[in-house]
Amino acid sequence: MSKPSEPRDSRDVSRWDIETDVVVVGLGCAGAAATLEATGAGAEVVVLERASGGGGTSAMSGGVIYLGGGTPIQRACGFEDSPEEMFEYLMASLGPRPDEAKVRAYCEGSVAHFDWFVEHGVRFKAAFYPHYSGEPPTDDGLVYSGTENAYPYDEVARPAPRGHVPQIEGKAGALLMQTLLAAVERTAARVVTDGRCETLVVDPPGAVVGVVARLDGRERVVRARRGVVLAAGGFINNRAMVETYAPRLLRCKFRVGAEGDDGSGIRMGMGAGGAAINMDMGSVSLPLIPPKKLQKGILVNAHGQRFINEDAYYGRLGEYALLRHDGRAFLVLDNATFERPEVDREVAGVGETIEELERELGLPEGSLQATVALYNRHAERGEDPVFRKAREWVVPLIESPFGALDCTTENSLYAVFTLGGLRTTVDGEVLTPDGDVIPGLFAAGRTTAGLSAPGYSSGISIGDGTFFGRRAGRRAAGRRS
Amino acid sequence: MSKPSEPRDSRDVSRWDIETDVVVVGLGCAGAAATLEATGAGAEVVVLERASGGGGTSAMSGGVIYLGGGTPIQRACGFEDSPEEMFEYLMASLGPRPDEAKVRAYCEGSVAHFDWFVEHGVRFKAAFYPHYSGEPPTDDGLVYSGTENAYPYDEVARPAPRGHVPQIEGKAGALLMQTLLAAVERTAARVVTDGRCETLVVDPPGAVVGVVARLDGRERVVRARRGVVLAAGGFINNRAMVETYAPRLLRCKFRVGAEGDDGSGIRMGMGAGGAAINMDMGSVSLPLIPPKKLQKGILVNAHGQRFINEDAYYGRLGEYALLRHDGRAFLVLDNATFERPEVDREVAGVGETIEELERELGLPEGSLQATVALYNRHAERGEDPVFRKAREWVVPLIESPFGALDCTTENSLYAVFTLGGLRTTVDGEVLTPDGDVIPGLFAAGRTTAGLSAPGYSSGISIGDGTFFGRRAGRRAAGRRS
Repeated sequence: MSKPSEPRDSRDVSRWDIETDVVVVGLGCAGAAATLEATGAGAEVVVLERASGGGGTSAMSGGVIYLGGGTPIQRACGFEDSPEEMFEYLMASLGPRPDEAKVRAYCEGSVAHFDWFVEHGVRFKAAFYPHYSGEPPTDDGLVYSGTENAYPYDEVARPAPRGHVPQIEGKAGALLMQTLLAAVERTAARVVTDGRCETLVVDPPGAVVGVVARLDGRERVVRARRGVVLAAGGFINNRAMVETYAPRLLRCKFRVGAEGDDGSGIRMGMGAGGAAINMDMGSVSLPLIPPKKLQKGILVNAHGQRFINEDAYYGRLGEYALLRHDGRAFLVLDNATFERPEVDREVAGVGETIEELERELGLPEGSLQATVALYNRHAERGEDPVFRKAREWVVPLIESPFGALDCTTENSLYAVFTLGGLRTTVDGEVLTPDGDVIPGLFAAGRTTAGLSAPGYSSGISIGDGTFFGRRAGRRAAGRRS
Repeated sequence: MSKPSEPRDSRDVSRWDIETDVVVVGLGCAGAAATLEATGAGAEVVVLERASGGGGTSAMSGGVIYLGGGTPIQRACGFEDSPEEMFEYLMASLGPRPDEAKVRAYCEGSVAHFDWFVEHGVRFKAAFYPHYSGEPPTDDGLVYSGTENAYPYDEVARPAPRGHVPQIEGKAGALLMQTLLAAVERTAARVVTDGRCETLVVDPPGAVVGVVARLDGRERVVRARRGVVLAAGGFINNRAMVETYAPRLLRCKFRVGAEGDDGSGIRMGMGAGGAAINMDMGSVSLPLIPPKKLQKGILVNAHGQRFINEDAYYGRLGEYALLRHDGRAFLVLDNATFERPEVDREVAGVGETIEELERELGLPEGSLQATVALYNRHAERGEDPVFRKAREWVVPLIESPFGALDCTTENSLYAVFTLGGLRTTVDGEVLTPDGDVIPGLFAAGRTTAGLSAPGYSSGISIGDGTFFGRRAGRRAAGRRS
């Protein structure tokens, strides 16, 4: 059985079966981006993809790409944006200590990164989808995919939608990856599918000089003269790893990840001396909407208390509900605000009065009544001074009967993938726990810690995967070993 | 400059300056325990302590040791306890997925571990200190040091105090370590102070066979025939590491740790292929009391809401306030419940009415009023169905004037140390990211992830440090390389 974290010593390699400049491990969005840039820089590239075809988790996703700073699509749709506004939003939303150098590079390079997608054949329709945030069901190209236009971030930076979606109706991830894979095919890169990378080859005291792979059932040792780029995804599908590093995420029912997201890339990097960070964190989505009208309800915890503005993005809602309120949440509505949710979601309780509903939900006596009374008092003036939901969604909940939708982790959809991984420089170089670069080792995508942990906005994963994947590919190609 | 995470290849070692069976790195409580057991098992031991004397963070601590299951002190003080009750409490309180094998071993071995302390000269007075939880100012030997006797854990297991404190007035850590260090001196172990371990020596493909140390200004290579035990503390005093792995802890003003808690032990272990887990977590203490009467107040967040039973242990209060409520908390009291806190703590606001106090604190209009009204309504019956504070501390807050003590991270004392570290077996063997044992490498104390993350009860750090330090020392001594 393969032990990714045990590197092979190069002195134990008698001969190289294959030689190339750069080895890219994994052909999701990060691997494709690295391959395109490395070949573009003149390097000979071998790509090892363990599945029978490229695409990875990116191909299963909604295909949203977080881009901004004034892209042609943003401008055509009438939204002003700048790298500075984007930077302010991301620095405020990405947890307690974002990697400022990465956030800055990402924002300053975002318009050029949009152009890169277009150059490689990805098309975006210049139309804004306003009906809810996240993945649009239409072929519209722009959508809000974070909490830019709600409290507290609407006060931090001028809101602009930054979710860019390739033009197709519905799930756009497959189209995005088809397009990027077609671009990869036009390069001279040698793509080996059903090619499993088993571990790294290390030249003491620590430079990475190749990989051990299993191809056609045989072990092959592949030399990488300039570098290896690990782009092998996250670890949401490795239960033991999630138990060890991110046990809170186990409670989410819907794991977003291809089979290959078993953490082997991260473990290979650790075995070669790389540090992994943010390993406890994940993107946790709790989709309350569509329909958007449901934002008029109030989300309460097991103590009958509100805990967030309900118009926050679903990534923020999920994170708060799971990590701060033990995954115990109910969306309370009255007869006027109720509408059937598009996401499959059970009714947890109904009552002629809030008191009856409170009892029905098993909430402490008086708790929900106090919460609703306070909310309604302010809502009569269209205000929500306690959690700052936008005026548009603030109405008193007064029309009987009342009901609550079940938003507990046990009974509803929480979508999750891991955000922890190898620590890298802005050029994708993998760092040791002491902060030193490991010569010859690069990583990108969910094999790395990336931009977000916590504070996920949709599109950041494909966004940072491709952006830093490109930089890793270029840096690897330009390296002289 | 030393790079702990870059191991030395044994093939690059021309000669060993010192040879021994077991090298113990660090002479805090874990290192002392490992040394005592390794020498007791007949091994030749060299201890490297970078400071001018042993003691480490343990010597600076309150000296509380978390022990139970029916120790002689518990029995003499009239408390019933059993390994099973202790196990239930710990499994429920130690976060989302405690290491069950470790918790079980710890509970089953706890009475014998108490005896071990006594055998090595540590004395405990058979007297229970009831006035508050945590470190007693008297020489009493037993105290509550967790949330055993408050909600929710009082319903999980029969409450028993398990904080055992060596007999001395005030801070008992120094006495504890003096006693253990005296016991170490009575062994044949060679203790080298001012001896800094710089990195490990590794025999490819991965066995640890020694260390590189700096002694008297010169590099010395020390062979460890049977094993190396890393007991070098946590990383709270390495700002870069805290920023990288546990940025939320940066907000706590009071760091509990000796200078040596710079994470070098953890980084050495990682460099030799060890996995570090729970790296984001810390013990975060927010001491509201003494005097205990202050538990009659209510702790509210920035939304004017309560968020926990105020009689929970200070480790749990701090964790909730910092990690779930962004370190924004106020303790609201009325004239009848107010008393001057023994911990230095500012008054954040006063008011003739709750409404005035609410305004003074900058809380959303009506929020604190709603919270106090609900609390008082139940408190009139001596009940707290919302957060389940014990009846003894539940009285209506009705006597003007009202005031609030500042419990925000910015303006008050939050004590913190790190809980993340190397992943080990129940015998202290360090594991790789793939879950394999690294031959010859052991670890204990805060260099490991230990029992707790999160859900700290005081005394667990010295408790698991000594308990698993002993097991690591024994296992290392018994190993044949």
